[in-house]
Amino acid sequence: MVPEKDRLKLASGRLEALGDGIFGVAMTILVINLGVPVMKGNTWQNFTASLHESSTDFLCYVISFIVLGIMWFGHRMMFEYIGRTNRHFIFLGVLFYMVICFVPFTTQFLAKYTLQWYAIMVYGLNLSLCNITLYIQWSYGIKRAALLERPLPAEVRREARILFLLSPAVYCLAIVIAFFQPYISIGIFIITPVLYLIPNKLDKYLP
Amino acid sequence: MVPEKDRLKLASGRLEALGDGIFGVAMTILVINLGVPVMKGNTWQNFTASLHESSTDFLCYVISFIVLGIMWFGHRMMFEYIGRTNRHFIFLGVLFYMVICFVPFTTQFLAKYTLQWYAIMVYGLNLSLCNITLYIQWSYGIKRAALLERPLPAEVRREARILFLLSPAVYCLAIVIAFFQPYISIGIFIITPVLYLIPNKLDKYLP
Amino acid sequence: MVPEKDRLKLASGRLEALGDGIFGVAMTILVINLGVPVMKGNTWQNFTASLHESSTDFLCYVISFIVLGIMWFGHRMMFEYIGRTNRHFIFLGVLFYMVICFVPFTTQFLAKYTLQWYAIMVYGLNLSLCNITLYIQWSYGIKRAALLERPLPAEVRREARILFLLSPAVYCLAIVIAFFQPYISIGIFIITPVLYLIPNKLDKYLP
Amino acid sequence: MVPEKDRLKLASGRLEALGDGIFGVAMTILVINLGVPVMKGNTWQNFTASLHESSTDFLCYVISFIVLGIMWFGHRMMFEYIGRTNRHFIFLGVLFYMVICFVPFTTQFLAKYTLQWYAIMVYGLNLSLCNITLYIQWSYGIKRAALLERPLPAEVRREARILFLLSPAVYCLAIVIAFFQPYISIGIFIITPVLYLIPNKLDKYLP
Repeated sequence: MVPEKDRLKLASGRLEALGDGIFGVAMTILVINLGVPVMKGNTWQNFTASLHESSTDFLCYVISFIVLGIMWFGHRMMFEYIGRTNRHFIFLGVLFYMVICFVPFTTQFLAKYTLQWYAIMVYGLNLSLCNITLYIQWSYGIKRAALLERPLPAEVRREARILFLLSPAVYCLAIVIAFFQPYISIGIFIITPVLYLIPNKLDKYLP
Repeated sequence: MVPEKDRLKLASGRLEALGDGIFGVAMTILVINLGVPVMKGNTWQNFTASLHESSTDFLCYVISFIVLGIMWFGHRMMFEYIGRTNRHFIFLGVLFYMVICFVPFTTQFLAKYTLQWYAIMVYGLNLSLCNITLYIQWSYGIKRAALLERPLPAEVRREARILFLLSPAVYCLAIVIAFFQPYISIGIFIITPVLYLIPNKLDKYLP
Repeated sequence: MVPEKDRLKLASGRLEALGDGIFGVAMTILVINLGVPVMKGNTWQNFTASLHESSTDFLCYVISFIVLGIMWFGHRMMFEYIGRTNRHFIFLGVLFYMVICFVPFTTQFLAKYTLQWYAIMVYGLNLSLCNITLYIQWSYGIKRAALLERPLPAEVRREARILFLLSPAVYCLAIVIAFFQPYISIGIFIITPVLYLIPNKLDKYLP
Repeated sequence: MVPEKDRLKLASGRLEALGDGIFGVAMTILVINLGVPVMKGNTWQNFTASLHESSTDFLCYVISFIVLGIMWFGHRMMFEYIGRTNRHFIFLGVLFYMVICFVPFTTQFLAKYTLQWYAIMVYGLNLSLCNITLYIQWSYGIKRAALLERPLPAEVRREARILFLLSPAVYCLAIVIAFFQPYISIGIFIITPVLYLIPNKLDKYLP
């Protein structure tokens, strides 16, 4: 119907740029929540006491920063295959960015109530939603040939699904455990990003 | 007068990059306004009570985030047709960005005084101004062949005008209703972004 | 000495991207300084009283936003001619960005002590320094053929110098006047960005 | 194993864009920490007294801004040679960005406890870690031919290592001195960025 010359490409570059901005701000804002500690004296003991007091804050900051980094990577990988966008794809992208922007908030909540089940639940749900919304966006995109920039190998499709849905599953486990042993839930939050360093089947597609 | 080789292109890419940065920050900043709730105890009742208290804040956050996402989309679409800029076009762009940057402020105002007519009025006016300034910029740009990158089909021109001016009209309605039934105004703010998912005549130009 | 193949281009794109990010954040942050007004009642009088109280804040916000927009434009124009960078050019760019990042701070200071000579002085000096550091960067860049992307017409060189140095001169005038009639200084701050809409000799080089 | 057509390039552009966003926000956020001074009267003496009180804050702001600018430059230079990425390289990049995002926090800490050994230690360690994580990322990247965009001259490799590791060494010295003469440590923080203006062996590779 619409002549070829009037069809728009709607390249994904702008959506990626918006995402880079949002990730950049969300990652930097994590640290604003860290209040500068008040020092009582200049002895070594005072310093280590202050460090100890701030340690949960720092831990939550580090976990969230690395988790956001990993999600950024997943998001970045998606656009290796998807090179064009449409209205619905962008809408799904906005939903993904919305839950990403919640992370500094839930991180602060976790830092304040670290071992409480509700903080672990809210934080775990937030991280799960990040993965789930990204997976929905990915699923929508790869089904439409008009959005794909290059063919998607079947192995990548399978492996990507596992990688997208593995961490929501793990985070749900952490939420359940939080009602009994919250220390273990925090441990799961710490270990999950470390697992990311393990080689996976997608590595052979990368340089 | 000016020889061809001295004429500048002033491609729109940089203005788009500034816009992506501003949208990225404005969207992320929305969440800073959400204060971390203070929990009184760790029972389920305390948790749901806290959730209930924060629910208006979250609702306003979600509405504004999605509205900003939709405006970003309109802005992004504009640059499919307009590929060059000049001093006045950039000035109009700065005005558009200025009202966009107000959104986190008016969102916070609405979150604080949700059912008051003045909060609804200020918020509705802000969103209307976003659309109106973007429409002015668009109208300026499409009238100048030197700024256009590709021909603008008549149907796109007509449909874009409707899409740009529809929501200011709806928001004005919400403002008027706010003096009688503020709940309905909030309902209008919620429904308007949902309407965005309905297919429109421009979709067939997209991939 | 260095073989041609080992010479780096150091294209200006990345420095521009950093600048777009910094401008984007600085412009959005202006509005964070606007505190949400506390409303005492829901009468029209309470609302206009609140508006009146916040009016200086809004005025300072609008002035600074537009001034930053104009500086962004000057900065953007510079890179139409300068397409490569080196260590010193980037260092001068960092200085420019540093004074730009001060603007939200001095704006807040002006909003708080609007009619005081010291607030006007600090604000005027800040804006002047923005222009002066940008002018230094520009002067450094256009003297080095290796950084230029296209020949710089003599008229552009002359006109750009006037445009860069005019507003520092005007702002210095505003500072001096502030000791006698601060209202006039604020008027100068308001009018200066409006003057920007007047056509100038560079317009004919643009699309 | 993987056919050539399925191999991804994973160009570094997106990682650079994320970095530009993070640097842009971190640099702009430095200034948020500067509280607007409270003026007691409008005499010149009150003004200079206020200036004097804020002077350490300003000094720390200026030092950190320029140091971040220099680190941005190092980061930017890295991507002249490295044009592709992989999962581990991006992970190292996220670590680098994480310590960069700490700088506004440690700057605020230094501004508050300027002459205390612990503030100098935390600040010096932060800046050292920035350089060290960037150096690790660089070392990882230049060892993998698949990531390199152009051959890396041996002189650049040698000189870059010196430039990357010199400032951590200097900052460690500043930390040690802080236990005896904190004024000297602050002096070292001031002088280090100035040293950056001295020509070095890499300059001849630049335009």
